[in-house]
Amino acid sequence: MTPAKAALGKQLFFDVRLSRTGTVSCNSCHNVMAGGEDGRAVSVGALGKPGRRSAPTLWNVAYQTVYYWDGRASSLEAAIRDQMLSPTEMGMSDEASVTQRLSWIPGYQDQFDKVFHNSGSLTYDNIAKAIAVYIRTLVTPDSPFDHYLEGDKQAIPAAAKRGHHEFIEVGCASCHFWVNLSGPVPGLAFQMGEGFYELFPNFVGSTYESQYKLSDDLGRYLVTREDIHKRMWRVPSLRNVVLTAPYFHNGSVRTLDEAVRVMAKTELDKELTGRQVSDIIAFLNTLTGKFPAQYMPRLPEIPGDTLQLP
Amino acid sequence: MTPAKAALGKQLFFDVRLSRTGTVSCNSCHNVMAGGEDGRAVSVGALGKPGRRSAPTLWNVAYQTVYYWDGRASSLEAAIRDQMLSPTEMGMSDEASVTQRLSWIPGYQDQFDKVFHNSGSLTYDNIAKAIAVYIRTLVTPDSPFDHYLEGDKQAIPAAAKRGHHEFIEVGCASCHFWVNLSGPVPGLAFQMGEGFYELFPNFVGSTYESQYKLSDDLGRYLVTREDIHKRMWRVPSLRNVVLTAPYFHNGSVRTLDEAVRVMAKTELDKELTGRQVSDIIAFLNTLTGKFPAQYMPRLPEIPGDTLQLP
Repeated sequence: MTPAKAALGKQLFFDVRLSRTGTVSCNSCHNVMAGGEDGRAVSVGALGKPGRRSAPTLWNVAYQTVYYWDGRASSLEAAIRDQMLSPTEMGMSDEASVTQRLSWIPGYQDQFDKVFHNSGSLTYDNIAKAIAVYIRTLVTPDSPFDHYLEGDKQAIPAAAKRGHHEFIEVGCASCHFWVNLSGPVPGLAFQMGEGFYELFPNFVGSTYESQYKLSDDLGRYLVTREDIHKRMWRVPSLRNVVLTAPYFHNGSVRTLDEAVRVMAKTELDKELTGRQVSDIIAFLNTLTGKFPAQYMPRLPEIPGDTLQLP
Repeated sequence: MTPAKAALGKQLFFDVRLSRTGTVSCNSCHNVMAGGEDGRAVSVGALGKPGRRSAPTLWNVAYQTVYYWDGRASSLEAAIRDQMLSPTEMGMSDEASVTQRLSWIPGYQDQFDKVFHNSGSLTYDNIAKAIAVYIRTLVTPDSPFDHYLEGDKQAIPAAAKRGHHEFIEVGCASCHFWVNLSGPVPGLAFQMGEGFYELFPNFVGSTYESQYKLSDDLGRYLVTREDIHKRMWRVPSLRNVVLTAPYFHNGSVRTLDEAVRVMAKTELDKELTGRQVSDIIAFLNTLTGKFPAQYMPRLPEIPGDTLQLP
């Protein structure tokens, strides 16, 4: 990771020319000016096709060991390589058309050679690498809860302290733990590529399950085709969770209070009181971190010319 | 103009929630991370419909007396009010649905009241005002040609000096003059709402005219229905022109050298030599200014909730 590589990755992240029609960039669905996603149940890609699952936030994904809701990518780079070619995301037809497009833009050609210390460095893998380096800079430390854990007892209000207690007592913390409140992080218990999955719904048959179609998507099973992976999902982070509505893999639940109730019922078979929900929400509100001030990138152009996009 | 108003306008400028489907922001077609437009012949709006004319750059539009290619808006605010409701741009159904949407976002409600010093300030007019204030900050001074005019004779290369001479001799400068190389600016000869228009094509019957369909659109005539306004167009700025391909009202000409040849032929009935073209291009290259470093805005969210977008 170097500042120059992150700067190049940031340009690519915001550049719609990485999508087939030139209409969407990475930021369209993973909006880093906001909660790192797009506030939609599912996103719509460059070809106008909606995706199958809700775009997850990009903030703090540097702490993940696997990527996608089903963990099918074992690195950020692998996920990005897929996303450029996915028909519901950037929709490019093949790797060569991505590198060819960028090679027409002198400012990119030059930067790749400089940043990767080699001529001919504008390759598909390096495009994904540069974007990944930028994304890894997207962390939001210094949430009120972080300060609370560091010993500042006044950093969070009383309701949040009660909520934190409930969060542990009810059982949420058995999966949502450690630095990202998403279980093991790279190098701590888990290595890259090794995912922390849970069954969702764990208790089947609730009205929530049918109302929000929670079991319609079989999750990790669709990757491995092993029965034990049916309805298994990567445990997502709870950092900045108040900024990432709607919730769950299919974005079916619009509000966070409903998401808390759904989780308690389907994962732990518990019905929460109104007071428990509001206290837990007060706690979740303390997980919003400080978003780094970021300069906008300048996107390189082709002087006196432009790409011809469909 | 206040910094707080510009900061609010910047958030709105980048917020896709100002478009019907939540898929495009002002920046989608007027990309201020690049040349202030989108590099397309015509843009595609929130409803997937292409516009009729090419999105013009937003850089330095503070110096315009009228807006749109046909000058039909007499202020930036008026243009923005139109664009939010245009079916080929933001596609919102009416003014009330714009203000209602934003009123659901507490961070906007608060800012409008603060910035406009009044509760109930989240109005359609004020939305346009705030965006306009931000856009007026988008100026690119300090081009090499500016430094040349200020007396630094080394600021531009010899070819550009020859090109500048040709630019005047051939006749380009009869329309492309003054601070924005687009004719009169507000308060200097022209008042706001008073447009500087020229006939294009002026000399009809060239192969360029048919090849690039230059006369298919009757320009300002479509606004006034007066015969003298047929094929009349606002003279556009040449600042940063190497960054704003493709060219002309219909974006039909992909490269700047071709645009220079087309202009000489259709406006002045002159055929330029290759040397003249390359010198004029060298001059036009010196019109690229310094783009201000801008922080990304943080877009306000609805805590634990989101707008339901189509």
